[in-house]
Amino acid sequence: MTRAPNMPPPIEEAWPAICLVRPQMGENIGAAARAMLNFGLVSMRLVAPRDRWPNPKAEIVAVGADKVLGPARVEWRIEDALSDATLVVAATARPRGLEKPVWGARETALKLRSAIAAGEKPVVMFGPEAAGLETDEVARADAIMTLPVNPGFASLNLANAVSIFAYAYAEARQEKDLPPWFLDLQDPPATQAEFEALMAHLEGELERGRFYHPPDKAPVMKRNIRTALLRARFTDQEVKTLRGVIKALTIGRGGRKLGDPY
Amino acid sequence: MTRAPNMPPPIEEAWPAICLVRPQMGENIGAAARAMLNFGLVSMRLVAPRDRWPNPKAEIVAVGADKVLGPARVEWRIEDALSDATLVVAATARPRGLEKPVWGARETALKLRSAIAAGEKPVVMFGPEAAGLETDEVARADAIMTLPVNPGFASLNLANAVSIFAYAYAEARQEKDLPPWFLDLQDPPATQAEFEALMAHLEGELERGRFYHPPDKAPVMKRNIRTALLRARFTDQEVKTLRGVIKALTIGRGGRKLGDPY
Repeated sequence: MTRAPNMPPPIEEAWPAICLVRPQMGENIGAAARAMLNFGLVSMRLVAPRDRWPNPKAEIVAVGADKVLGPARVEWRIEDALSDATLVVAATARPRGLEKPVWGARETALKLRSAIAAGEKPVVMFGPEAAGLETDEVARADAIMTLPVNPGFASLNLANAVSIFAYAYAEARQEKDLPPWFLDLQDPPATQAEFEALMAHLEGELERGRFYHPPDKAPVMKRNIRTALLRARFTDQEVKTLRGVIKALTIGRGGRKLGDPY
Repeated sequence: MTRAPNMPPPIEEAWPAICLVRPQMGENIGAAARAMLNFGLVSMRLVAPRDRWPNPKAEIVAVGADKVLGPARVEWRIEDALSDATLVVAATARPRGLEKPVWGARETALKLRSAIAAGEKPVVMFGPEAAGLETDEVARADAIMTLPVNPGFASLNLANAVSIFAYAYAEARQEKDLPPWFLDLQDPPATQAEFEALMAHLEGELERGRFYHPPDKAPVMKRNIRTALLRARFTDQEVKTLRGVIKALTIGRGGRKLGDPY
């Protein structure tokens, strides 16, 4: 495509990435890719799309946005799709009593601009069309993004939700006075993968210590601890330190088997 | 549908209305209706939809938003769809050098909230999928709404564009401090139909006076006069006065034929 010399250059920003969790319809994936590129976002991640991938319907709808759809990262597990993220925002209409900050789209966009300037790698994740994100998925997020939807008709089309965030992000690009990012860390923030390894380490040791009682409460107990620790937004160095803490606390406790990973 | 007693009531606001001009695909009309209701807007107008109406594809996609799609007003001519509007905003990516205010979506939303509180009846119009609004259509608007799209990939899906405006409008609903509306008229503002009649009167008399010279410049000359007068945002009383002015200026000029409407 020929471009006039006085035309502003195209915008293609790798962060924030958009992660569609268990998306169902290829059309919606393609439409989300288009909406992303409309507002200069190019990193798409997909967690366990319902239909086979590559998806011809997504390609038809995304036409022109191949540079988003083509290199989209596809993972089976949400933790793999978020592994390199240092900051995760979950788009959900229903904050489920999790102790997390709740932001509007504009607020999210402004905070993410500041966060990126401070070295963060944010991912905004959207749930599947019908049901939205599950509580355990939302629990992985540092913050929740909600839209001021009509209580009488709240179920938003997936691509529309993505386009509203992408629009808000493009508006935030034009904002000269960004609020300072809430944590101006000296060290780089931990990635989700590092945080996940910390949680696996801790949860493994807690299981050995018979912490989860009664056992059917384990998922809720795990989620609450995750939510509390996630809020601290550890640096990678702090995660290493905390793993040392867990090791020190558990040394000599016994019960560890040969070949245990920690 | 049963509603919990502590649930906030549904939102269904008649203004601003959304007008889709020459929309092509039924799916997009249905998706726009859904996006409107998602954010509490219920008045839809369609100008010359490409396919037959009612449109089964629109109905499938709009499912749940029947209260928007069902009563949608369908007109052949744009002036009929805008006849009762007192304020028209054209969504277009390309302001064409028309002397009109240009607003972002958030700015548009805030201004329309104020305008409605001041008694205005605003319509936001969106062009067809491929080509957008034509210059003569944009010329009917009091202001232009643009979105900060990627210069490298600017063609926004119609329903996404509608949902972005509707979202921005819902955010503006939560805004406590609205800017005062720029014109706090004592008298009610003229509707587009009243303004159209004034323009027809004036243009008819100008033609009789051989004002449009050379004749092939007539469309541009008409558009420029329309744009200039539209900016004054006349009240209905002022429109009546101006029609009297035109009559007074043309009395005795001759050249009027028996049966002329003015």
